[in-house]
Amino acid sequence: MPYVNIKITKEGVTDKQKKQLMEGATQLLVDVLNKNPATTIVVIDEVDTDNWGIGGVPVTELRKKSQ
Amino acid sequence: MPYVNIKITKEGVTDKQKKQLMEGATQLLVDVLNKNPATTIVVIDEVDTDNWGIGGVPVTELRKKSQ
Amino acid sequence: MPYVNIKITKEGVTDKQKKQLMEGATQLLVDVLNKNPATTIVVIDEVDTDNWGIGGVPVTELRKKSQ
Amino acid sequence: MPYVNIKITKEGVTDKQKKQLMEGATQLLVDVLNKNPATTIVVIDEVDTDNWGIGGVPVTELRKKSQ
Amino acid sequence: MPYVNIKITKEGVTDKQKKQLMEGATQLLVDVLNKNPATTIVVIDEVDTDNWGIGGVPVTELRKKSQ
Amino acid sequence: MPYVNIKITKEGVTDKQKKQLMEGATQLLVDVLNKNPATTIVVIDEVDTDNWGIGGVPVTELRKKSQ
Repeated sequence: MPYVNIKITKEGVTDKQKKQLMEGATQLLVDVLNKNPATTIVVIDEVDTDNWGIGGVPVTELRKKSQ
Repeated sequence: MPYVNIKITKEGVTDKQKKQLMEGATQLLVDVLNKNPATTIVVIDEVDTDNWGIGGVPVTELRKKSQ
Repeated sequence: MPYVNIKITKEGVTDKQKKQLMEGATQLLVDVLNKNPATTIVVIDEVDTDNWGIGGVPVTELRKKSQ
Repeated sequence: MPYVNIKITKEGVTDKQKKQLMEGATQLLVDVLNKNPATTIVVIDEVDTDNWGIGGVPVTELRKKSQ
Repeated sequence: MPYVNIKITKEGVTDKQKKQLMEGATQLLVDVLNKNPATTIVVIDEVDTDNWGIGGVPVTELRKKSQ
Repeated sequence: MPYVNIKITKEGVTDKQKKQLMEGATQLLVDVLNKNPATTIVVIDEVDTDNWGIGGVPVTELRKKSQ
């Protein structure tokens, strides 16, 4: 019963992409560790870009700089 | 000073229920480990059903199938 | 399929107590939210007292002071 | 490459304060462990006061009592 | 810079398997969200079977029952 | 009552450095958000370099390559 947590910034990830992440992560645990997919949990945390810092700078600012 | 994190899907949990979870978890740590309730933290994370996958399927879909 | 994480300091918690924490947390989610116990996960993290700080002081030191 | 997670209650923290937290936490890891700031992640979780309990009481209630 | 956390029970996962989990999770985020692999972090938490409960029962016991 | 979690690789961090991280993180929350230091928790997770991957490569390997 693995528990996978994927933390990404909240930047328009679609439901389809979320499902792909869940499917992929679950299949990965089947392939590598032969885990039971039926009891594998995948939780996706979408974090505001104001709340995610890299090198001390909020991603919101990093995105503006890279435009 | 225990820290308890309860992750559940975001499906209409009331404030009263949240308080019951906090009270129950805090009392559990008093009963089992004699911890000081005054410094026990309980944080409840409510996760969108689109963001919680079981067996690679978002709970949103699982709920629809079970209706 | 709730996920409960209990973080406590590593100070001699017995296997029996761990099981009591698991049982209690699982039952709490049955009682309050009518969750399915069979798919409720409880993970207990035991943290070294050198790695847990309160008010900027490691619990190791706090324990020494309180002896 | 350190990952720092700061959990606080959702009580009006400004973007400026969030950036200060990110800068401060990143600089702390440079100062103490000589970590590379460019690959240090700081994620701030703001938790509703209904979802954060201390001593079994939601912070929402604690705030009302202390007014 | 996604952060992926994989929690599994501590049951003899090899270094090779851990690397496969890291590669697979990183590639998944490239394939689905076009994330930069160079800044994708994957952390694997191996939890003692005494500390992981399902349905209120430690995995240690569940494993014994299923032998 | 903020909760700060610092995840770093397990590479010989001393108790003195851990205390400095706790003091620094606690003081940061005092300075920026005027939080009560007495109820601020800082937990440091030290992760084996086999269990921490960057770009799909365990830090153990990255360290060998950079020697």
